[in-house]
Amino acid sequence: MKQNIYDTKTFFTKYSQMNRSVKGLEGGGEWKTLEKMLPDFKGKRLLDLGCGFGWHCQYAIEHGAKSVVGVDISEKMLAVAKEKTSKEIQYICKPIEDTEFTDHSFDVVISSLTFHYLVSFDDIVKKIYSWLKDDGEFLFSTEHPVFTAYGTQDWYRDSKGNILHFPVDNYFAEGKREAYFLGEKVIKYHKTLTTYLNTLLQNSFEITGIVEPQPSKEMLETVKGMKDELRRPMMLIISARKKIEK
Amino acid sequence: MKQNIYDTKTFFTKYSQMNRSVKGLEGGGEWKTLEKMLPDFKGKRLLDLGCGFGWHCQYAIEHGAKSVVGVDISEKMLAVAKEKTSKEIQYICKPIEDTEFTDHSFDVVISSLTFHYLVSFDDIVKKIYSWLKDDGEFLFSTEHPVFTAYGTQDWYRDSKGNILHFPVDNYFAEGKREAYFLGEKVIKYHKTLTTYLNTLLQNSFEITGIVEPQPSKEMLETVKGMKDELRRPMMLIISARKKIEK
Repeated sequence: MKQNIYDTKTFFTKYSQMNRSVKGLEGGGEWKTLEKMLPDFKGKRLLDLGCGFGWHCQYAIEHGAKSVVGVDISEKMLAVAKEKTSKEIQYICKPIEDTEFTDHSFDVVISSLTFHYLVSFDDIVKKIYSWLKDDGEFLFSTEHPVFTAYGTQDWYRDSKGNILHFPVDNYFAEGKREAYFLGEKVIKYHKTLTTYLNTLLQNSFEITGIVEPQPSKEMLETVKGMKDELRRPMMLIISARKKIEK
Repeated sequence: MKQNIYDTKTFFTKYSQMNRSVKGLEGGGEWKTLEKMLPDFKGKRLLDLGCGFGWHCQYAIEHGAKSVVGVDISEKMLAVAKEKTSKEIQYICKPIEDTEFTDHSFDVVISSLTFHYLVSFDDIVKKIYSWLKDDGEFLFSTEHPVFTAYGTQDWYRDSKGNILHFPVDNYFAEGKREAYFLGEKVIKYHKTLTTYLNTLLQNSFEITGIVEPQPSKEMLETVKGMKDELRRPMMLIISARKKIEK
């Protein structure tokens, strides 16, 4: 069975209290960067993989999307999404890996901080390619390979608990890692940068943007510990376009 | 003045004894990966930035290049190159940053492990764009941002000297780092992955390949310490194509 930590009670409660849950998109340190990389949504058909509370779906509707489909494994997340976001959005409760569409007519596919939960990036990229129209756009954020390689996703500290640096190890050994997120054990799958980028290229996507987001100036000044986010990259945001087969 | 460590006697002597100097291309752990990413050289005009002993220039000539120009800051390196490689190759002794060409007719520009010595990646990318023909190809290797971020370029070890992991810090603070290479102090300039890739995209290059090279199976079995190279990425190889302005 695919991991569904978001439906366990303690994790869901804690996740619901995070800045990115309470404040919505503005609560995510990477949002300002991601927003600049979003395509124009006007009149577009959008698919959001791992939509969670539906913040990105709602943003797309508010920015003129013609239709929006959100997929997520978590019933609890989608229950909140259905309550809080536009009735125009169609939510599907399913593991991303099991999702299928028969019509291949999406203009845009987005995914926020979800792909590090998937074993195979190649499988989902092939599907997304088939679901997109020619010239369709694909934008996703994922945890950075630097952040996922070691496993614990925590700083290396001295005996007093002060941060020394961020550790990297086993970089080329892709696969399962056990990390603690909000005090709960979570399984993630480390992939190298080579895997993320070359998988796109090999599946006929043109890469149109790659950014390792940094917190905004305002966040650096107001959120405790945010300055440490300048010490190592935590996320990667990549935009790509489906190339027309020649 | 631009750093020219390769012309200092002790460094040059030690560098000349390295595997990649004695064995040529085959001595570099990344060569097998780089070779697969090289464009077809037949009938092409090639420029090699930071050509050193001229191994890549020679390879291009042997694979049918019509003309080859190699640029390097080091007189000592070029003296060896001129002695050991084809007389058809034109060598220019100059800092890359000061290099200019009036004719913009190169088919291919390559650069091996040189750009981490340059302050600005944007400056050289703009030049390369202007030197390439439409659809011209650009391939380079550089030290990986994971490898350059912390500064010392050394493993983090326990008190007995055993490797614990590789440290990453100050990732988003681009610029000068002091490392020791072959026992000599060398200045390098850390750049993020975002800088390497987005600079290409913003200067109208299409990214065609990105690989973090791993040592070959043979090297893993025969070269001491090579297995540790699977623990962190040391290099990045990127290929790109000059897009025709629409």
